[in-house]
Amino acid sequence: MPVAETWLLPDGVADILPEQAARLEHLRRNLLDALQSAGYQLVFTPLIEYTESLLTAGNADLELVTFKLMDQLSGRLMGIRADLTTQVARIDAHVLPVQGISRYCYAGTVLHTAPQGLSTSRSPLQLGAELYGYEGLAADLEMIGLMIQTLVLARSTGKGLHLNLGHVGLFRSLSRLAALSAEQEAQLTDVFLRKSLPELKTLCQDLPLGQDFWWLAYGGQDIAVLKQGFSATVLADEGIQQAFSDLLKASECVKARYPEVDCSIDPAELRGYHYHTGITFAAYAAGYAMPLAQGGRYDGIGAAYGRPRPATGFSCDVQLLAADSVWQVALSPVRIWAPCDPSPELAALIQAERQAGRVVVQALDAGQEPDRLYSHHLTNVDGCWQIVATQ
Amino acid sequence: MPVAETWLLPDGVADILPEQAARLEHLRRNLLDALQSAGYQLVFTPLIEYTESLLTAGNADLELVTFKLMDQLSGRLMGIRADLTTQVARIDAHVLPVQGISRYCYAGTVLHTAPQGLSTSRSPLQLGAELYGYEGLAADLEMIGLMIQTLVLARSTGKGLHLNLGHVGLFRSLSRLAALSAEQEAQLTDVFLRKSLPELKTLCQDLPLGQDFWWLAYGGQDIAVLKQGFSATVLADEGIQQAFSDLLKASECVKARYPEVDCSIDPAELRGYHYHTGITFAAYAAGYAMPLAQGGRYDGIGAAYGRPRPATGFSCDVQLLAADSVWQVALSPVRIWAPCDPSPELAALIQAERQAGRVVVQALDAGQEPDRLYSHHLTNVDGCWQIVATQ
Repeated sequence: MPVAETWLLPDGVADILPEQAARLEHLRRNLLDALQSAGYQLVFTPLIEYTESLLTAGNADLELVTFKLMDQLSGRLMGIRADLTTQVARIDAHVLPVQGISRYCYAGTVLHTAPQGLSTSRSPLQLGAELYGYEGLAADLEMIGLMIQTLVLARSTGKGLHLNLGHVGLFRSLSRLAALSAEQEAQLTDVFLRKSLPELKTLCQDLPLGQDFWWLAYGGQDIAVLKQGFSATVLADEGIQQAFSDLLKASECVKARYPEVDCSIDPAELRGYHYHTGITFAAYAAGYAMPLAQGGRYDGIGAAYGRPRPATGFSCDVQLLAADSVWQVALSPVRIWAPCDPSPELAALIQAERQAGRVVVQALDAGQEPDRLYSHHLTNVDGCWQIVATQ
Repeated sequence: MPVAETWLLPDGVADILPEQAARLEHLRRNLLDALQSAGYQLVFTPLIEYTESLLTAGNADLELVTFKLMDQLSGRLMGIRADLTTQVARIDAHVLPVQGISRYCYAGTVLHTAPQGLSTSRSPLQLGAELYGYEGLAADLEMIGLMIQTLVLARSTGKGLHLNLGHVGLFRSLSRLAALSAEQEAQLTDVFLRKSLPELKTLCQDLPLGQDFWWLAYGGQDIAVLKQGFSATVLADEGIQQAFSDLLKASECVKARYPEVDCSIDPAELRGYHYHTGITFAAYAAGYAMPLAQGGRYDGIGAAYGRPRPATGFSCDVQLLAADSVWQVALSPVRIWAPCDPSPELAALIQAERQAGRVVVQALDAGQEPDRLYSHHLTNVDGCWQIVATQ
């Protein structure tokens, strides 16, 4: 390998250099602190697990993006985490099986075999929150609020944010009412995910409740209008009524609490269908094809670990948020240069300044000169050490 | 896979639960802040790289502990970082090729195929600092100071710390003077690393300067005594003289600045021999078979990336430090319970308390009761919301 090629990094991973690293760290701390102050307890999960616990049954998407490794100690297959949600579900089910409500938050790097969606990163810094043990909409509303608050903290404004509300209960209930086979449901899910209306039109012609499926995809974003287009059988279904009621309440709540956030309903949204069981939410901003943050209800995720519980949560990529140009952190512009001098008074002053959060660099020998990057320098005036602004 | 087994984690990795996670996060922040305030710029490096850049030539130890992955995008072999030092060296050589002195700090999870030394963890949280571009001892002394300061921050005292100073220049110079073959040097290094005196005795009988090699291993920790046992040829060597001078100065400096730290010299210490080129240092504490932190000089590490530079650094495992029973963090005992009430005054008060760093959990419905874990609750007294201590 020629020396010239030893510094090439794989696609989708990158060094994070000082200026960006300081932003990322600052943002990570602030976002975690905000979640913790809302009662979400911090947990850290392992980078690797056996595939049996990391990839619970039925999540083919997650399996595809998960790097696999052989464990030399056990001879068993391990995966590198591609999502922290299932890991936190394992903690809720087994490690900390609290009765009642549990709130957890986390931040950690995940790895993907290939970039997801239109993002180019294969190693996002996933940060999120999960609430276990409460099945009512109030928990989802708390989660939507935390997600918006997270983005407002990162962007210092809610303006320009677009919130998209969906509910997989609509599609699930229609599939149940239409008594679709697993194959039909999978085919239809795929068409919904790709939002391919021509294919959907053809498919719906031969399907029970085909007209209703078509209307779900094409009926628009107004709940009142949407309801009028479904058949009476569908409208009488409890699952459908519950989904509409949840969407309406969530939408009203968001509009009241975050009037600056643009909020709309996408009844045909099935992103994370294999995972989610109720209301889903995703926040977008201009210039980003991917959601900045997303989440939803995923009751029963703990079943694979022997303890199904109601659950709702959200997550985001802190790297994506930190790169967002709207957001700026005021990094300390104070950098103090200290000469090479064995004086204990100087050493004590340097220590005090550093403890106060200011950057002090001390010369390694008497010949070293400060460069222009130092805003101040420490100097001895009449036997007394002083901090003086650099001219 | 039975449900009962889905929660078993591989050996050497673990969930970090709320209490320990809070400590770890607190410590990580404080240690990084201290390094940054000494002028060390934070960088984050990728979790994966091509093996060509991650495993630079001649580091068989690192290769052995590095997990390998196939990159599906390029068809090339990648490794998961097992050490951040080579990654930071790559940044210094190629990404940020600053002239003069560069100071970097970092914190990140690394993975090892098997536990290292007597530790049981395969995924330490490596935190450290590196100084590039200065070949004098002053940089090593700064690094030793930062390493001790890091441990004092973590343990809130320097008492009970034992600092071990070594210098690979002694062994290197002896090998050069004895004109050892690569094979002889490798064999001897292995015996020194295992500190196997019987084997060394046999080996030294047939070796040029065998008596000096034996004395290096067996001459003890006092530099003045040590010098008397070497042959005149050896004592006249510049490399040997430099190494003794460095060790003496470093030892005196540590004793003057950190009198509470027990400091000794181990001239036969070759840990990290393939890597280090000058003085080495490791800090131990009672109850830990592994060093709590270690480092040393490793000039020329950037050569693999086309830019050899003088370099010195140290690193530690924050998880190990956080688990240290000497250290305790005072986690906020204030947890406030708020009732489910749509009042905007209540919402504003909750927001303000959270921003002040206190934990406020709001009931999700009117029927929820706070448990004993809440130290305070928010209550409405005569139309005014107040924070009251829980009885």
